[in-house]
Amino acid sequence: MGTTEIIANPGEQQITITREFAATPELLFRAYTEPDLLVQWLGPRQLTMTIDHFDLRDGGRWRYVHWDIDGNEYGFHGVFHGTPSLAGIVQTFEFEGLPGRVSMWTVTFEELGGKTLLTQNAVFQSVEDRDRELQAGMADGAVESMDRLDELLSTLLPVS
Amino acid sequence: MGTTEIIANPGEQQITITREFAATPELLFRAYTEPDLLVQWLGPRQLTMTIDHFDLRDGGRWRYVHWDIDGNEYGFHGVFHGTPSLAGIVQTFEFEGLPGRVSMWTVTFEELGGKTLLTQNAVFQSVEDRDRELQAGMADGAVESMDRLDELLSTLLPVS
Repeated sequence: MGTTEIIANPGEQQITITREFAATPELLFRAYTEPDLLVQWLGPRQLTMTIDHFDLRDGGRWRYVHWDIDGNEYGFHGVFHGTPSLAGIVQTFEFEGLPGRVSMWTVTFEELGGKTLLTQNAVFQSVEDRDRELQAGMADGAVESMDRLDELLSTLLPVS
Repeated sequence: MGTTEIIANPGEQQITITREFAATPELLFRAYTEPDLLVQWLGPRQLTMTIDHFDLRDGGRWRYVHWDIDGNEYGFHGVFHGTPSLAGIVQTFEFEGLPGRVSMWTVTFEELGGKTLLTQNAVFQSVEDRDRELQAGMADGAVESMDRLDELLSTLLPVS
């Protein structure tokens, strides 16, 4: 299993997450863009994820909800910028508990001799917003998601 | 006439523009959100601006074009994030000549005893993107736009 690396330098307003997966870029792209797959890995294990809408095109909007066992819901939504493709996915991201705060995510899939280097970069409106995200436990959540993604990929057949 | 201040610290991925105007926040908000007013100040004087669409709501898309005297066109588009209001305007911004590169703009209007401090913050996907924007002459363009905005505001009646 690969190792998730999280880069968040002091005073910067971004967080960069990288991980190498034993899978093709095509398979990773599917895991990011097919709702049935996305709900199986995105977020902490103890939460259930449901997707309200997921309009995978330039300008398309998405919204999903994470539910805990007490029925509390945590909503998130955003907009795809540019057509999502193997060249990358750019989208905005808003947690509905913090209206007005928007981050922008760029995901790329780089083929490395049969493996794929995933890079996920999040840019925030300010250093304070970036730091709040870290304090809220974003790093632990990202590691858990990446582990779940790795487990899911191992169950999927590669694109022929 | 006020002075436009542009802050772009080395190694950061943002550009912050501030300027004080002898106008109310309401008047500045109109200049940013009414297409008939926007085309009178946004961009260099020697370009003509036309607005294709401008859907001023959470998730709404806008697109405008700047034309030079030879008929060359420069298209831009983006998406409003959150409902634009006196509390601020958050939107993404894409130059159609550089597909895949997205910046995120946050504009706020702070009342200061009869005047208004405008703050316009742009965050880029990387420091390189921010630096490219500066090299393309963004600062000069911003100063010219702010001067034109000041001139326009002086011709408008304050909201009663």
